[in-house]
Amino acid sequence: MDKFRVLKVKESVFANNEQRAEELRSELKNKKTYLLNVMGSPGSGKTVTLTKLINMLKADLRIGVMEADIDSDVDAHTIADQTGAKVIQLHTGGMCHLDSDMTRQGLEGLGIENLDLIFLENVGNLVCPAEFDTGAIKSLAILSVPEGDDKPLKYPLMFTVINALIINKIDVMPYFDFDQQACTERVHKLNPDIPVFPVSAKTGEGMEALANWLLGEVKAWQAE
Amino acid sequence: MDKFRVLKVKESVFANNEQRAEELRSELKNKKTYLLNVMGSPGSGKTVTLTKLINMLKADLRIGVMEADIDSDVDAHTIADQTGAKVIQLHTGGMCHLDSDMTRQGLEGLGIENLDLIFLENVGNLVCPAEFDTGAIKSLAILSVPEGDDKPLKYPLMFTVINALIINKIDVMPYFDFDQQACTERVHKLNPDIPVFPVSAKTGEGMEALANWLLGEVKAWQAE
Repeated sequence: MDKFRVLKVKESVFANNEQRAEELRSELKNKKTYLLNVMGSPGSGKTVTLTKLINMLKADLRIGVMEADIDSDVDAHTIADQTGAKVIQLHTGGMCHLDSDMTRQGLEGLGIENLDLIFLENVGNLVCPAEFDTGAIKSLAILSVPEGDDKPLKYPLMFTVINALIINKIDVMPYFDFDQQACTERVHKLNPDIPVFPVSAKTGEGMEALANWLLGEVKAWQAE
Repeated sequence: MDKFRVLKVKESVFANNEQRAEELRSELKNKKTYLLNVMGSPGSGKTVTLTKLINMLKADLRIGVMEADIDSDVDAHTIADQTGAKVIQLHTGGMCHLDSDMTRQGLEGLGIENLDLIFLENVGNLVCPAEFDTGAIKSLAILSVPEGDDKPLKYPLMFTVINALIINKIDVMPYFDFDQQACTERVHKLNPDIPVFPVSAKTGEGMEALANWLLGEVKAWQAE
């Protein structure tokens, strides 16, 4: 049997994405399945971070993953091999984002019964994914130290629409000119109240605080 | 006087982008102005690399720069301050790419008279910019070591449409799991004959080979 299914999601024919995203959120609420939309640049460490998080949380939560990519299966293989989680690969056919209808196609392909938490790893991009409500309960972005602390200035919409920020690859901080305080201030100027988690998904530093926050989020939302 | 002008480029109303891109290339050829389209992820080091290249080439070539960004002026300030080159900032108003008509608006705003070489720093993104012919003479991409050697597998169109690849930030190679040979093989499988330049724009390593190649390109094209 294959480790995961590959699904080609079709461009949405619906104009009213925001309304359809709200409908999807209501359905997820009824099933108590928390969908988290994870965005970030190519190479920011989305897949490694999710792999670590899943392994930290899988004793407490039943977890699924939707890996969105233009064309390849690289990330779905990694996640399936390293976590054993239920995974589906979504191919966007060249499109640089997912809207709520494409997300719905993915959820139907994955099957959401008996899942507490589903990660949607969005296409690696700081522009387009920020423009479309996927229907996720919350969204977060991963910004990695090598990308630079000026990214909130250059891609303000991304840093405005998220509910939490992960600053990844803090283990290489000594080799880059990255001002974590300035970066956090720039993000909070756009989006005052969001939590910021400095982590190294590679070394594990900071990951426990992130995992605890996410576990609390999911449990509180399920109990609402 | 302001260091540079900021121009809001408007979404193209023309459907025939490829034909219009060819027309722009003919006009550039008549004026002997070489336009180089520079693409790459957010934080791959496009601005730092261009800053270094301009300072290495400005004794031999008259150089202009068009900095495309969603919203900010950060990169135009950097280039103007550090090189003294003629710079214009293009704002795409949220769009994640430039087509040939938007590029033409930028060239008209910059003024191309008496310029040998114009760099177009495209929006930081590995997806959308690859889909649109800007009308540039050639295109290159900058991939940085922290992004990972799997990017050609995940964003194949980008690595197929370029005429040269820069692998940047080789100074931090010891801290990342990046296989330069595997990366180069993946790129050459998509795009067999392109030159690949491993550089550190920060330390200057490899930059001379890159600058010499580009100078040769421009001079040969002008003499054709």
